[in-house]
Amino acid sequence: MDEIRLIEVKQDIHADNEAVANELRKQLAEEQTFLLNLMSSPGAGKTTTILSTVAALQDDLRVAVIEADIDSIVDAEKVAAEGISAIQLRTGGFCHLDASMVKRGLDGLDLGSLDFVIIENVGNLVCPAEFDTGAIKNAMILSVPEGDDKPLKYPLMFSVCDVLLVNKIDYLELSDFNLEVMRERVLRLNPKLQIFEISAKTGAGVQEWADWIRREAGAFISS
Amino acid sequence: MDEIRLIEVKQDIHADNEAVANELRKQLAEEQTFLLNLMSSPGAGKTTTILSTVAALQDDLRVAVIEADIDSIVDAEKVAAEGISAIQLRTGGFCHLDASMVKRGLDGLDLGSLDFVIIENVGNLVCPAEFDTGAIKNAMILSVPEGDDKPLKYPLMFSVCDVLLVNKIDYLELSDFNLEVMRERVLRLNPKLQIFEISAKTGAGVQEWADWIRREAGAFISS
Repeated sequence: MDEIRLIEVKQDIHADNEAVANELRKQLAEEQTFLLNLMSSPGAGKTTTILSTVAALQDDLRVAVIEADIDSIVDAEKVAAEGISAIQLRTGGFCHLDASMVKRGLDGLDLGSLDFVIIENVGNLVCPAEFDTGAIKNAMILSVPEGDDKPLKYPLMFSVCDVLLVNKIDYLELSDFNLEVMRERVLRLNPKLQIFEISAKTGAGVQEWADWIRREAGAFISS
Repeated sequence: MDEIRLIEVKQDIHADNEAVANELRKQLAEEQTFLLNLMSSPGAGKTTTILSTVAALQDDLRVAVIEADIDSIVDAEKVAAEGISAIQLRTGGFCHLDASMVKRGLDGLDLGSLDFVIIENVGNLVCPAEFDTGAIKNAMILSVPEGDDKPLKYPLMFSVCDVLLVNKIDYLELSDFNLEVMRERVLRLNPKLQIFEISAKTGAGVQEWADWIRREAGAFISS
């Protein structure tokens, strides 16, 4: 095995949008609206997961979706086509959402008439993990085809989330993804992480995840 | 279908590392070393693709790999375990490589004894597309499980690349990925894009892609 030379190229990323995020959480508490921030790689299944999650919840909760995209509005179109209220934030090249952008999205919604808003963040496992959006809870998707080594490579993302959705479990048979190894890796980073195994496409596991939202939103609204 | 409200949150990203990148290309021409920058989402298969590509080339070209990772050195370990020269750039949270970082990696190699250096950029379809690394050619991987809509959502990445590797074609049977639709979408963005369909895992298509590198590296070295 060749020797590996290691060069540090760390740079500071200024992320002081904490004040805006805290202000946003105060407003959400007053309005009794539970805000969830959903993050993942491109193609891990955020939009499909949102559609199946909202379908499981919409008899109980009044829901809207904030979609972030760099350039297109395809995801918001898919969401709106299902009759769900959608706001599109177009970031114009920006690789994540911050609290000010989310505030602009929320300002476009009538929060008083909503119990639950879900943000689809930009598809990226790096930058979104560094910026507090003002959400009450953070969730991420890791899809099976991405591999079980992702917690080693993107530790911050796995550390800042309350929930991990392991999506595309219908691909497990074709993959060498090891659920047990992945579970050990993520729980070492974040022992409190809630893990749900789902297939947003087939609907497997979606009810358990929707139940978690129902409980958390209920606790937040009645607090 | 609900109406979609669209909010622009564009921000400028200052990317004037062009001078360093041009300087780097001049140096590479003098040293006769072909530098390729490989980009993709997390989990699209960059490291596996690099391993199978180097295996196909190493009888003809003297090769080294520059690995970028936010925090871990797992990819460089995999590469070095195959007896390939590897340099690890740890970005410490930074979401892409720029030309100065790549320069530090190249400074750690003996370019005079190398024909071909491949950079594994940070797994991210957004930020790496915006920063010229100084590479002679840019390639990206889109893996089948990510979906055929990625050119709509990350158009810049598809526009700046010379080559698109469609990886994990062994997943096609399980997926609704439409190769024809994807091809139309990417060629609309970038009519000159070279497309190779591969499975880095099974080796399918890797020879054709390695042949392309052999041709391009040969043309660059003899120019």
